[in-house]
Amino acid sequence: MKIILDVDPGIDDAIAIALAHKWPGIEILGITTVGGNLPLEKTTDNGGKILKLLGANYKVYPGMAQPLIRELKTAENIHGPTGLGYAQLPEGKEYIADKHGVDFIIEQVNKYPKEITLIGVGPLTNIATAIKKDPSLPQKVRGICVMGGAVFTQGNVTPAAEFNIYVDPESAEIVFNCGAEIILVGLDVTLKVLLTREHLEIIQKKGGSLGESIGEMTKFYLERYLDGNKLPGCALHDPLAVAVALDKSLVSMEKMYVGVETKGELTRGATIGDKLSRFNKKPNVYVCTQVDSNRFLELFLDRILDHTN
Amino acid sequence: MKIILDVDPGIDDAIAIALAHKWPGIEILGITTVGGNLPLEKTTDNGGKILKLLGANYKVYPGMAQPLIRELKTAENIHGPTGLGYAQLPEGKEYIADKHGVDFIIEQVNKYPKEITLIGVGPLTNIATAIKKDPSLPQKVRGICVMGGAVFTQGNVTPAAEFNIYVDPESAEIVFNCGAEIILVGLDVTLKVLLTREHLEIIQKKGGSLGESIGEMTKFYLERYLDGNKLPGCALHDPLAVAVALDKSLVSMEKMYVGVETKGELTRGATIGDKLSRFNKKPNVYVCTQVDSNRFLELFLDRILDHTN
Repeated sequence: MKIILDVDPGIDDAIAIALAHKWPGIEILGITTVGGNLPLEKTTDNGGKILKLLGANYKVYPGMAQPLIRELKTAENIHGPTGLGYAQLPEGKEYIADKHGVDFIIEQVNKYPKEITLIGVGPLTNIATAIKKDPSLPQKVRGICVMGGAVFTQGNVTPAAEFNIYVDPESAEIVFNCGAEIILVGLDVTLKVLLTREHLEIIQKKGGSLGESIGEMTKFYLERYLDGNKLPGCALHDPLAVAVALDKSLVSMEKMYVGVETKGELTRGATIGDKLSRFNKKPNVYVCTQVDSNRFLELFLDRILDHTN
Repeated sequence: MKIILDVDPGIDDAIAIALAHKWPGIEILGITTVGGNLPLEKTTDNGGKILKLLGANYKVYPGMAQPLIRELKTAENIHGPTGLGYAQLPEGKEYIADKHGVDFIIEQVNKYPKEITLIGVGPLTNIATAIKKDPSLPQKVRGICVMGGAVFTQGNVTPAAEFNIYVDPESAEIVFNCGAEIILVGLDVTLKVLLTREHLEIIQKKGGSLGESIGEMTKFYLERYLDGNKLPGCALHDPLAVAVALDKSLVSMEKMYVGVETKGELTRGATIGDKLSRFNKKPNVYVCTQVDSNRFLELFLDRILDHTN
C-alpha cells in the first residue's frame, strides 16, 4: 500500500510520520508539508529533521504556505516555537525536495492510479489545491484519510471547530466533496486516544534514540494538554489518522453528508454531520464515531518501540 | 411566583400550558402567542382552545406573527395541520385578549418588577421585541427560561440547530445577551424526557376529560416521533422548560457564554456553548446539561393527572 502523508509538523505530526515509517508493509512515497501548526518554512524544516531522524528513503515536498483564502493561523502554543516541543533535532535540509508538494501529489497519483492513500493531518490546502489543479485526482486516489473536524463533539480551537478545518475550511469543503472515498478521523475519536505520562516513560525507556526524541517532543505536548484540557493525557490526533488509514478495523465509521461551515461567525470550520439526512444531500464522508483505544495504543507503542525497522 | 408563558401551540406547548396551569403555588398572568410551530393565527386560536379546556382565569395575548428578519418556518409535520394532533377542541375565542402579546409582557413586567419569570417555548420573537421596545425589561424580570437550542448535542431541524432558535436566531441572540438570568432548556435535556405509549395510556385512562384531550394530541405527536426519530417516545420539550422554570432542582446547569449563529449557511441558529471560554466572552446563559428524567416524568404525570385543580 502506497501513501503520501500531508503534514504540518507539529509534534503529533512528527509522531504520525514515525508511526507510518515503522508500519510494516506500506510504502511512503513522500511527505508533503503545509502551513498549519507553524508556518510552512518551519513545517518543512521539521519534516526534513524527522526524515533524517528516521533515516528515510523518501523526501519532503513543501506545499502551500497559506490557506486558500484566509490568513494562516498557527498553534505554537501547543507545539512550541520550533514545532517539536523540547526536541532539538539536527537539520535535515538534504531531505527537502525541489518540487512543490501539490505537484508531487499530482505526479504520484497519476503514476500510481488507484494505489495511493493520501493521509492529510494538517489543513487541507495541499490536497484541495491538487484537486483544483488536476480534477481527475479524486478518481485516481485510493482514498483520502483526514485528521480533522469534530462532528458529534465540541471543537478545540472554538466550541464549533477543530483546528485543521478551522484554519482552511474552504479547502476542507473541496476535499470532502471531491468524490473520493473520504475518511474523517476527528476529535470524536482522537480525543479518546490519549498518551499518558506512563506511556511517555515507556517510550523514553525502551524506544532507543527515536524514543528519546519522541519523548522530548511529547513531554512538551503532554504538558500543554495537562494544563489546558483537563484530560489525563495528550491526544494522538495525527497518529490515529495514520493508523486508521492503514487499519480501518480500529474504528467504527458511519457514512453521512458532512458539510463545512465557511460562512459562520461563531461556527467557522464546523464540520456538520448530517446523520439524519436533514439536508437531503448525498453522503460524502465516512465519519469515525468510535475507536478501539486500547488496541490502538498497544499497536502504537509496539510500532514505535520496534527496533527492527 | 408569577409567570408569563410565551408559546406557539403546538402539541407540547399545549401540554406545557396544562402543566403550568396545574402546578401548585404559581400564578399565570397570561399566555402570549407567537408564530412558530404554526402561523400566529393558529397558535393564538389554539391558545384560546386550551385555556377554555383548562377553564383558565387568564387570557391569550397574540404576539408577533413573523420572526424579526426572516420568513416564518412552521412545523405542521410534527404537530398536525391544526397544531393539536388528533384533538378536536371547542373554540375559545373569548379567551383571546385585545392586547398585543409584546405589550402585555412589557405591561406586566413593569407592574410586577422582579417577580415575573418569562417562559419562552417558541421562537423568541415576542420576548426579543419586548426587550427592544422596553430596554429596562431584562432588569425587571425575575428570569427568562427558554426551551431552545442544542448546545452539546445535534439539532432537530438541522444537525446544527434546534427548531425554536433556527426559526428566529436573531431574536434568540437578543434574548441570550439581554442581561437577564437566562436558563436554556435545550435538546441536551429535552430529548431525555420521553413520553412513551405506556405514559399515554395512563393519561388517557386516568386523566379525565383533560387527559382525553391531551391523549388525542399526544398520540399524533408520539406517532411522528416513533416514525422519524428512532426514539422510544416523544420529547416533552416545552413541559420540561416549564418544570425547570418552576423547579430548578430537576436539572444540572452550567453557566457559560452561548452565542447564536446568525450568519452560518449550514449552522443557522446553532447555539454555540463556549464551555472552555475559547471566545473569552462573559458567561450569559445557564445551560441545562443533565436532567433527572424519572423525577420529571413522575412529577409531570402527577400534575397532569391531578383532578383537584
